[in-house]
Amino acid sequence: MPAGEFGRIDRWLKPLAAGFPGARTLTDDAGTVAVPPGHELVVTTDAMVAGVHFLPTDPPGDIALKLLAVNLSDLAAKGAEPLAYSLVTALPRDLPEEWLAGFASGLAEGQRRWGIHLLGGDSVSTPGPVCLTISALGLVPAGRMVGRAGARTGDAVMVSGTIGDAALGLRIALGEGIGASTAVADSLLTRLRRPEPRLPLARLLRHGATAAIDVSDGLVADLGHLAVAGSVSVTIEAARVPLSPEATALVTATPGLMADVLTGGDDYEVAFTVPAALQAVVETRAFAAGVPVTRIGTVAKGPPAVTVLGPDGQPIRLDRAGWSHF
Amino acid sequence: MPAGEFGRIDRWLKPLAAGFPGARTLTDDAGTVAVPPGHELVVTTDAMVAGVHFLPTDPPGDIALKLLAVNLSDLAAKGAEPLAYSLVTALPRDLPEEWLAGFASGLAEGQRRWGIHLLGGDSVSTPGPVCLTISALGLVPAGRMVGRAGARTGDAVMVSGTIGDAALGLRIALGEGIGASTAVADSLLTRLRRPEPRLPLARLLRHGATAAIDVSDGLVADLGHLAVAGSVSVTIEAARVPLSPEATALVTATPGLMADVLTGGDDYEVAFTVPAALQAVVETRAFAAGVPVTRIGTVAKGPPAVTVLGPDGQPIRLDRAGWSHF
Repeated sequence: MPAGEFGRIDRWLKPLAAGFPGARTLTDDAGTVAVPPGHELVVTTDAMVAGVHFLPTDPPGDIALKLLAVNLSDLAAKGAEPLAYSLVTALPRDLPEEWLAGFASGLAEGQRRWGIHLLGGDSVSTPGPVCLTISALGLVPAGRMVGRAGARTGDAVMVSGTIGDAALGLRIALGEGIGASTAVADSLLTRLRRPEPRLPLARLLRHGATAAIDVSDGLVADLGHLAVAGSVSVTIEAARVPLSPEATALVTATPGLMADVLTGGDDYEVAFTVPAALQAVVETRAFAAGVPVTRIGTVAKGPPAVTVLGPDGQPIRLDRAGWSHF
Repeated sequence: MPAGEFGRIDRWLKPLAAGFPGARTLTDDAGTVAVPPGHELVVTTDAMVAGVHFLPTDPPGDIALKLLAVNLSDLAAKGAEPLAYSLVTALPRDLPEEWLAGFASGLAEGQRRWGIHLLGGDSVSTPGPVCLTISALGLVPAGRMVGRAGARTGDAVMVSGTIGDAALGLRIALGEGIGASTAVADSLLTRLRRPEPRLPLARLLRHGATAAIDVSDGLVADLGHLAVAGSVSVTIEAARVPLSPEATALVTATPGLMADVLTGGDDYEVAFTVPAALQAVVETRAFAAGVPVTRIGTVAKGPPAVTVLGPDGQPIRLDRAGWSHF
């Protein structure tokens, strides 16, 4: 991270590194990260491109918060405690200074909320759209990262928070009329634009979960990743999937929206499996940690696939198995 | 790094992670990195954009090698041993499969040459130019990263290899006639497109160097970074700067090209300072390690600046203090 290359956003970024000595105030070519004895580093990376992953008109502070959140969401799902992050910005030369100020302000807010610091990175100019990358570093006790593989027959399938708000928010952001009041629309748009990584669950997950993933591609698709990685069959009941009051109201009025809820992306909740005997204690401790979790299904032997049962107990067919940025 | 997001380059990337268990064959959302006791991690990140840092028509294998090399060059200059890297690709949808194959092949060649493995990353589509980022992770004994700051009065200023080949190669790549024969042009273009990170010097640097930086912005500019970071004055003699036979021939014919040599970027040699008493042993050990180093100047008290002395012992003025991608 040659400091000079941070160029004109140097002044906005340096304060973000102040709390992490290994960042060397962004004035060297690399940063250092110490890993406590008995621990190892968890590294995850997510990139976002204007016009693909966010709308160019989105508030820059929200873009920054989301970029940080989607990376921290991976750390949370893997049972890791956040430590530091690298940032790469590829920005058009004519991007206004106010955009940079807003972007840095969003990062600062995220750092405060989630206890992470800027370690370094790079900043380059591009003739194309804004392209942003964060690589987040977290810590776990050695060998304790929670993987996608590991779900066992009989495990409870659980999910944090509520599902589908971001997918419904995306419809609203795209101007589709789905019958949301202004208050409902605001709430769902906030869930879309300002996701909350479920970091309070990290410790619980690494002590109890047999497998975990953050819900970014969509609940069904991401459970599918757990099913494939673990060579198990996953069955969930649509009626057990936790919905926010806003989503409940919309789905009640337009039942077809339930497909969006189950397959839409960008929830950034955690879907995970635990031994059925631990379900109650996991529910209690998650609630105590401030992030309720809900059992939505069961792991069984069988082909690596996800079955969604409708209210009548029969499998329902979904139009799409998830949501993709591509 | 959700494996699915590697999308169509998944098949090209997975083999690159095979040698690093912590990469989990790129099938999880994060990778793990173990740090041996008494060591810490060095993290450096460099991004490259088509049309800014490389020509869209450059061979994709060369682009990959250079992307890896510029990151490893930072690790080498910081005294770190390479361990693993994350890769982010933002690619146009219509990029031909052959480009991806060539790019992955270049990464594979770099991994073999430099002993590093793919840990994870992300792959997204972009409506803009190809945008590539590598974040490289290396190891040093705790507290032993070689910084930019640290040069002391009386230290010898040294540089590895030869300087200026890439700057002259860039002139050739841009179609400027600088009187190079085909053989000379080929050699300089290779130095521009396929830089060699000076990893064999890493151990020597962390044992002997008081400060170090890789020469990416240009010799004078990068020595300027050492001068500023260390609050010292650096004086070098132009006649001592090591040139390749190719650069020597061109500069002899056109003395004005010496400014390119001294200020051009992309050398990816290491500029460093050592206590003068260590100069001889450093020269001997570097030669034994396969990368000759040359003393080009001295550190003194004074304002943080770089003075270049001409053949007559008088300071010379350079048109530009370096070279920038911006």
